[in-house]
Amino acid sequence: MKNVNHSKLKIIPLGGLEQIGMNITVFEYEDSIVVVDCGLSFPEDDMLGIDLVIPDITYLKNNADKMKGFVITHGHEDHIGALPYILKEFPAPIYTTKLTMGLIENKLREHNLMKVCKRKVVKHGQSINLGAFRIEFIKTNHSIQDASALAIYSPAGTVIHTGDFKVDYTPVFGDAIDLQRFAEIGKKGVLALMSDSTNAERVGFTMSERTVGRTFDNIFSEHTSTRIIIATFASNVDRVQQIINSAYKFGRKVVVEGRSMVNVITTASELGYLNIPDNTLIDIEQMKNYPDNKMVLITTGSQGESMAALSRMAADMHRKVSIKPGDTIIFSSNPIPGNEKAVSKVINELSAKGADVIFQDAHVSGHACQEELKLIYSLVKPRYAIPVHGEYRHLKANAGLALNLGIPKENIFILHSGDVIEMDENQAKVVDRVHTGAILVDGLGVGDVGNIVLRDRQHLAEDGILIVVMTLERYSNQLLAGPDIVSRGFVYVRESEVLMDEARHVVENALDSCMDKHITDWGKIKNVTKDALSEFLWKKTKRSPMILPIIMEV
Amino acid sequence: MKNVNHSKLKIIPLGGLEQIGMNITVFEYEDSIVVVDCGLSFPEDDMLGIDLVIPDITYLKNNADKMKGFVITHGHEDHIGALPYILKEFPAPIYTTKLTMGLIENKLREHNLMKVCKRKVVKHGQSINLGAFRIEFIKTNHSIQDASALAIYSPAGTVIHTGDFKVDYTPVFGDAIDLQRFAEIGKKGVLALMSDSTNAERVGFTMSERTVGRTFDNIFSEHTSTRIIIATFASNVDRVQQIINSAYKFGRKVVVEGRSMVNVITTASELGYLNIPDNTLIDIEQMKNYPDNKMVLITTGSQGESMAALSRMAADMHRKVSIKPGDTIIFSSNPIPGNEKAVSKVINELSAKGADVIFQDAHVSGHACQEELKLIYSLVKPRYAIPVHGEYRHLKANAGLALNLGIPKENIFILHSGDVIEMDENQAKVVDRVHTGAILVDGLGVGDVGNIVLRDRQHLAEDGILIVVMTLERYSNQLLAGPDIVSRGFVYVRESEVLMDEARHVVENALDSCMDKHITDWGKIKNVTKDALSEFLWKKTKRSPMILPIIMEV
Repeated sequence: MKNVNHSKLKIIPLGGLEQIGMNITVFEYEDSIVVVDCGLSFPEDDMLGIDLVIPDITYLKNNADKMKGFVITHGHEDHIGALPYILKEFPAPIYTTKLTMGLIENKLREHNLMKVCKRKVVKHGQSINLGAFRIEFIKTNHSIQDASALAIYSPAGTVIHTGDFKVDYTPVFGDAIDLQRFAEIGKKGVLALMSDSTNAERVGFTMSERTVGRTFDNIFSEHTSTRIIIATFASNVDRVQQIINSAYKFGRKVVVEGRSMVNVITTASELGYLNIPDNTLIDIEQMKNYPDNKMVLITTGSQGESMAALSRMAADMHRKVSIKPGDTIIFSSNPIPGNEKAVSKVINELSAKGADVIFQDAHVSGHACQEELKLIYSLVKPRYAIPVHGEYRHLKANAGLALNLGIPKENIFILHSGDVIEMDENQAKVVDRVHTGAILVDGLGVGDVGNIVLRDRQHLAEDGILIVVMTLERYSNQLLAGPDIVSRGFVYVRESEVLMDEARHVVENALDSCMDKHITDWGKIKNVTKDALSEFLWKKTKRSPMILPIIMEV
Repeated sequence: MKNVNHSKLKIIPLGGLEQIGMNITVFEYEDSIVVVDCGLSFPEDDMLGIDLVIPDITYLKNNADKMKGFVITHGHEDHIGALPYILKEFPAPIYTTKLTMGLIENKLREHNLMKVCKRKVVKHGQSINLGAFRIEFIKTNHSIQDASALAIYSPAGTVIHTGDFKVDYTPVFGDAIDLQRFAEIGKKGVLALMSDSTNAERVGFTMSERTVGRTFDNIFSEHTSTRIIIATFASNVDRVQQIINSAYKFGRKVVVEGRSMVNVITTASELGYLNIPDNTLIDIEQMKNYPDNKMVLITTGSQGESMAALSRMAADMHRKVSIKPGDTIIFSSNPIPGNEKAVSKVINELSAKGADVIFQDAHVSGHACQEELKLIYSLVKPRYAIPVHGEYRHLKANAGLALNLGIPKENIFILHSGDVIEMDENQAKVVDRVHTGAILVDGLGVGDVGNIVLRDRQHLAEDGILIVVMTLERYSNQLLAGPDIVSRGFVYVRESEVLMDEARHVVENALDSCMDKHITDWGKIKNVTKDALSEFLWKKTKRSPMILPIIMEV
């Protein structure tokens, strides 16, 4: 038994499986805590009116004295998006690569938080010491540049966290994933591998980003007489680079449209991650000075987001770009699950305007498929496997790969949010579960919309509301005014006057029966009214609007 | 010029492109109208609380004297679902094949409409005369049995409507599509081909339904020790037949679960479309008498519908079936666009319970891909092409195939709902547009929820409602009680007492200013209150709840 004097390493996901997108994982060893990533998730369909969702970090606040900092794997929203909200009340140092830091700083600037925390840019191959931990940043490939895997060294052993990754032997910018380093660390002995499960259900090997460039060249060479509009993810700088390359090769100017696209391209250019030939980029106002077949428009909206630039163009609501018959429009993206219908709507609108819409072969995934995952397992040869990043089905598929590669079943862990796994060379075990949760952000409100409010919104959305107002005389409870019934979202009232008249009678009868029975308690009066009206409306319409009796006293 | 004495044939889709699913097409020649199909569509995401959507048949009502009957291609909801609602106020004879009629009669029985209209079962190869039209039913293949294409003969020429179809050379039940008949009619000259566009974007040829049976056999042979649960579309009787075949071959009993599944299987068995060996079907109550590996459960819920049997099992809400570790669960279906997330949720829940979920290769489409569409065009050789059934992008892809096959661009028509196309041998042209629309069904209400109600529901869903009630003295407008503010779906009030207090002050100030300015008009008082409160809340929360001022008078 080695390491017998050592404590154990704790790993605690504060989001993830129960809150997809909220990637935030605590690594704790004695009095040191390091947090990997701090992402947000977007609201589920039943979270009506919610803008975004951030993690509940009660556990971190309760252990604030241990906190050494946030270590960020890459600059996607599901890994950095919650930082400004969290830092506001829980400032801590941030460590990450250059482009990732640039994107984080954009957010901090927006939230006026530039002074709130220390920030250090780390290069691939470098390590930083944070309390009992040493963290090494390892070069990987992903659909955003400067992505890192992390080797997290602790006295209890080493954990490798892949972040989101793929293996790209021929990346568009910079180096391929540092497979040698994975092997080298693996050779020395790795306790646990936490690897990206997003594509774990997919067989084979994800294609190189560079293949998309060849597709662009083909499309450009086949469409020399029309305007070309390409929608893609704002953060995929390599994709943008390849569009610019094809544009330059085919003598077209490039226009960039959509706020997030402009932001990312500006940051990436400033930091040297994007190489734009002189006189290639033109302002959207200059479009009119060039013929259609000398232009490429790069735009947001590849997910059919209703307010994004391409969606506004499709709906004739964009102030500067109108879709014309003959436009060639490329979706350089796949719909993220849940967005399929929205994307299809935009494609239909564009097609109906006579545009030629291309939505095949102009995209590759940024995540490792099964063969890549097996490669990493085989280089790292971890004792324990902890699949991360994905829905349960994806984590399970990743776990299946680990099992096939010879990792014993009892050494494979699918962790739920808040699970505390303790490990050293001898054993790994889920020993506890800490409080976690999703905090809803709606407008300026963080956490002031909870389950009751959401349930009310769902009820209102489904069948609307009837408000019954009456004024009673103090003490006597004599009805002085009303009952008036006002409805919203229930039925079109002008067509339902009879129904509403009947409803008023139902309420009057209910009030009379309260009087007859000498019921004076307002709570009871309200309940009697509500029940009578509810029963009446269900019988008449098979609907259950929210019913809200209000009693005024004079 | 032949046919110079003839009138022209009119074709008018009353749904379709603008209301996907609402397949209902008017064929009109002089004083004869025949309507092909009468489908419903399911509500779009923004139609909150709506159960289903049926076509507005004002045009038919205005031409009631011409109506000869409904001719139905097959028994799917998007082709028969609106019939009971339409027949209630517009009874007309129905002509269709045996199984299709059986499914329609299930609906008529439910709505107590069995006596409202004449019904005639037609066999493939048979023709019926309806006014100026003769309609021939032609055998096709689809994901439901007894599907038909229609040859619609009129003095102005012949139209072939494929219905929904695929080419299956080796169907599970009955004959393959009658390609010879398509060719024969084509040889005699066809004015227009209206063909299914659903899969027109997909290259190749849709696989035979029979291939799914082989997949079932493989899965059954690989999972001999576990229970097998298979979710599929209730109406796909051939799929159910193949599950029963595999179950019988591997010595398993079959349990059927889910109301629509039981209904369709009962109807199909009674009418002879399903062949169940004796002692194969057992009741769900008998499950406990058999070991897991001697059972197959066929269930609804393949689309993740929250109330369907499989979803209830996944959520631990099914009264009779609990998912166990080791259960083999097969999704014999693809998610219909829009259902991807719901299906994934169910898969995650089942996986988390330890079930082995299979969702690949156990399904084939019921719609023709590009090679099949080209085959039909080549057999029929129509003068005009009118792609039907699908979103704009699909119709456009179908139109592209027609163009490639040599049909001139000006002879290809993508029709919008209400478009009136007139045609004969010399010319086809959209000459008019008639009124069409979508009528929303919510509970018992047909058409009483319109745009205003939907807009209110969306507003309520997004940010909730604040109700401001005050009692004023008659004539003097003196405030006697209130203002009281009640909110639902806005913020969790217990955490926002300060905000609500401030809101009340804002309202009081607004009322005071009305008094000062001697504003006595209730409409104005309400507007002033609403504007003041709205501005205050936006500043404080960046939210815009619905604000509803109510004035009571004593």
